[in-house]
Amino acid sequence: MRFSRFTIFLCTLAAGASAQPADEAVVRQIFSEALAHGTAYMNLQALTEKYPGRLSGSKTLEDAFLWAERTLGGLSPDRVYRQAVLVPHWERGPAETACIAGRADLPPLAVLALGGSTATPPGALTAPVVEVQSLAEVEQLGRDRLAGKIVFFNRPMDPTFIRTNLAYRAAGDQRFRGPAQAARFGAVAALVRSLTFAADDVPHAGMTAFPPEVAPIPCAALGLQSADRLSAALRADPALRLVLTINARHLPDAPSCNVIGEIRGREAPDEILVVGGHLDSWDNTPGAHDDGAGVVQAMEVLRLFRALGLQPRHTLRCVIFTNEENGARGAAAYAAAAKERGEKHLLALESDAGGFTPRGFELGSAQGPVHERAAGQWRALFEPYGVSAFTPGSGGTDVAPLQAQGAIVGELVPDSQRYFDYHHAATDTLDHVNRRELELGAASLAALIWLVDTHGL
Amino acid sequence: MRFSRFTIFLCTLAAGASAQPADEAVVRQIFSEALAHGTAYMNLQALTEKYPGRLSGSKTLEDAFLWAERTLGGLSPDRVYRQAVLVPHWERGPAETACIAGRADLPPLAVLALGGSTATPPGALTAPVVEVQSLAEVEQLGRDRLAGKIVFFNRPMDPTFIRTNLAYRAAGDQRFRGPAQAARFGAVAALVRSLTFAADDVPHAGMTAFPPEVAPIPCAALGLQSADRLSAALRADPALRLVLTINARHLPDAPSCNVIGEIRGREAPDEILVVGGHLDSWDNTPGAHDDGAGVVQAMEVLRLFRALGLQPRHTLRCVIFTNEENGARGAAAYAAAAKERGEKHLLALESDAGGFTPRGFELGSAQGPVHERAAGQWRALFEPYGVSAFTPGSGGTDVAPLQAQGAIVGELVPDSQRYFDYHHAATDTLDHVNRRELELGAASLAALIWLVDTHGL
Repeated sequence: MRFSRFTIFLCTLAAGASAQPADEAVVRQIFSEALAHGTAYMNLQALTEKYPGRLSGSKTLEDAFLWAERTLGGLSPDRVYRQAVLVPHWERGPAETACIAGRADLPPLAVLALGGSTATPPGALTAPVVEVQSLAEVEQLGRDRLAGKIVFFNRPMDPTFIRTNLAYRAAGDQRFRGPAQAARFGAVAALVRSLTFAADDVPHAGMTAFPPEVAPIPCAALGLQSADRLSAALRADPALRLVLTINARHLPDAPSCNVIGEIRGREAPDEILVVGGHLDSWDNTPGAHDDGAGVVQAMEVLRLFRALGLQPRHTLRCVIFTNEENGARGAAAYAAAAKERGEKHLLALESDAGGFTPRGFELGSAQGPVHERAAGQWRALFEPYGVSAFTPGSGGTDVAPLQAQGAIVGELVPDSQRYFDYHHAATDTLDHVNRRELELGAASLAALIWLVDTHGL
Repeated sequence: MRFSRFTIFLCTLAAGASAQPADEAVVRQIFSEALAHGTAYMNLQALTEKYPGRLSGSKTLEDAFLWAERTLGGLSPDRVYRQAVLVPHWERGPAETACIAGRADLPPLAVLALGGSTATPPGALTAPVVEVQSLAEVEQLGRDRLAGKIVFFNRPMDPTFIRTNLAYRAAGDQRFRGPAQAARFGAVAALVRSLTFAADDVPHAGMTAFPPEVAPIPCAALGLQSADRLSAALRADPALRLVLTINARHLPDAPSCNVIGEIRGREAPDEILVVGGHLDSWDNTPGAHDDGAGVVQAMEVLRLFRALGLQPRHTLRCVIFTNEENGARGAAAYAAAAKERGEKHLLALESDAGGFTPRGFELGSAQGPVHERAAGQWRALFEPYGVSAFTPGSGGTDVAPLQAQGAIVGELVPDSQRYFDYHHAATDTLDHVNRRELELGAASLAALIWLVDTHGL
């Protein structure tokens, strides 16, 4: 028995040696099937053409979920079902306007209310504007300088970040928490430079948060050219007054749902693999990259398993989440139901960073550096497909809550250079999605899920 | 003296340890400067707006070279000069037409003469069409079946290739050599399915070659939808006749030039580093990716060195080549002049695969696997910028001839998914170029050149 470890080593080696070519062949099949016969792009075309502006609480989102249910049903899963979710219901109302008082000679500013904004008083709000670069500057200026004013956050995203999501986070405090900070010091409204690198004048929507102790104020994003024009106008006339109308309102929570399509596991049906995206989008956009791409890629994972006859060992679920943009209630409802039922989730992956060329995965687990294990086992398998970055992460909004329940959570990481050109903007359209890039992302998700299903992680 | 090797090892280690942080800092400066203040995109806007359709022999290309000379001059190089080159002069003439005889009910086919095509006879060419999938099939069918016919090469690009340039090469024999093959067996014209993955109907231009023993025939590319329509029409009526008009003609060789901007080396001015792109394009396109991107990136390398005060040890040349598309006379003239003058080229890099997110470099040398040396020394430096693939290559068309003179030759390798959507097509426009992706490519070129200049390779 002295050589038992060595025997195990040899057996492992033999198993490894025989598994690797099979893995390579299956991964190759997945990518070939996606590139030659993928349906993600066709589905994205249908979704963005028929259901643009899928904001929580809207009829459009409701109809889009019917479409998602039908589309999943067409993939021959073992089961398609709904999970009821109550979602926040915020409406933009008639389009916003912003112009400089007494300057009919200047074009109006391109402006778009932020999610969470209240309406301006009847007949518009007219007030002086104070431009700031940070939340700290708001505090320094204080109530004396800001009460009754419109605070204008105008710090650009830093272009020297390589991964644009880091630039987004670094400038994002202005949108996420800026309006609340302005409200704390008596501001009557807030404007925020859009979080984008695009040189156009299209404003980018997004959520802003008001904590319970701060009464919400009207707030809106400005297109970049409009932000620059307003800044220049303020330099020329610091006393100028802005005339702002916002017609947004909060309505009672509305019914919505997550939709789930499932292939039952052949060996351990009670252990679950999730791949997901969110169907809701901002109301001002077709939401092609955010997150139509993630939705159709998650659906494509099911299709690829079926088309290639890959019967998973564990149950594979495609989860189409609701309300990622302004509440994350879909994510919360899914995680709560999983906990209540005592479900065991092995892996939960999402795609919510755009349908661009896949570059890698972010992976996280309470059980240590799972991204390193994945890289060690499978990086060589993915490199021929240009997918090589395995980095630590904690999932996106929709799958992150499952980590606390023991799941490995993760996100597909596509090339990030173009994402914030379109993110939350009217320009997030199908023609800015490349079919091959989208299908490669779906294949990457399917391949990782197949490997985890087959070998564990 | 017994420990001399060890001493050298320690010194190397110390030098390495101190050099690495400095390298990291300079590479970071190069990328930050390109992303924050890069001028490549602005220059590409000027080039594509003012000088679309820069085909060899055209007035547009002549004017574009004046622009290139001025633009290089504005970068404060030590010298800007021209290298005279005689280039082939082929003209499309009035637009081509193709329609099915007697079927006025069908829309005309989207058709575009290939470079090298002759004109159809006065009053159009009308002939039956034989669809084939390969050059071998032409030979099998033989003269009996093809004499007097139009041969229609309709094999699609294989979508399962991951690197699209491999799919282009695999299908490209139809365009490169198909018309000559058809002519050998008596065909009176040839049509070729465009080499693209785009689902639109825009035909893609490109060169076709007729060897001296084969008399050229009229030949043209078909848009993908037109190719599919023609194929369907042939299935319905194999005897249909196509009416084709092409008005192309060959003119005598025309004067053109390469333009070179140079920063003189501070230590070894006689040893040369080249970075280049080609200014000519097909006549039907603004040539934003092919190869406006390479031109403005090569210019940006000079700007980055100047802006950051990086005085190169060796002479750094930005070479704007002529006539890459239909003759490669610019490349030949540059290499011939270098040989005649006995110049020593250390490195010659080009960018001619589009202004997309850079993924790596192809490098080649008569002195062995130089891509492995580069990866070993610098991959870790490039990985934070998403640039990690160092693969073997032999340069692009414009720098390849310098390998025989001892140079390391290479190409920037950008993400390839979108390239053939636009390649040689009217859709190769500025709005399909992302500013950050373009500037990242310029920074990658500058960083590699700086590393080779500083440390050798």
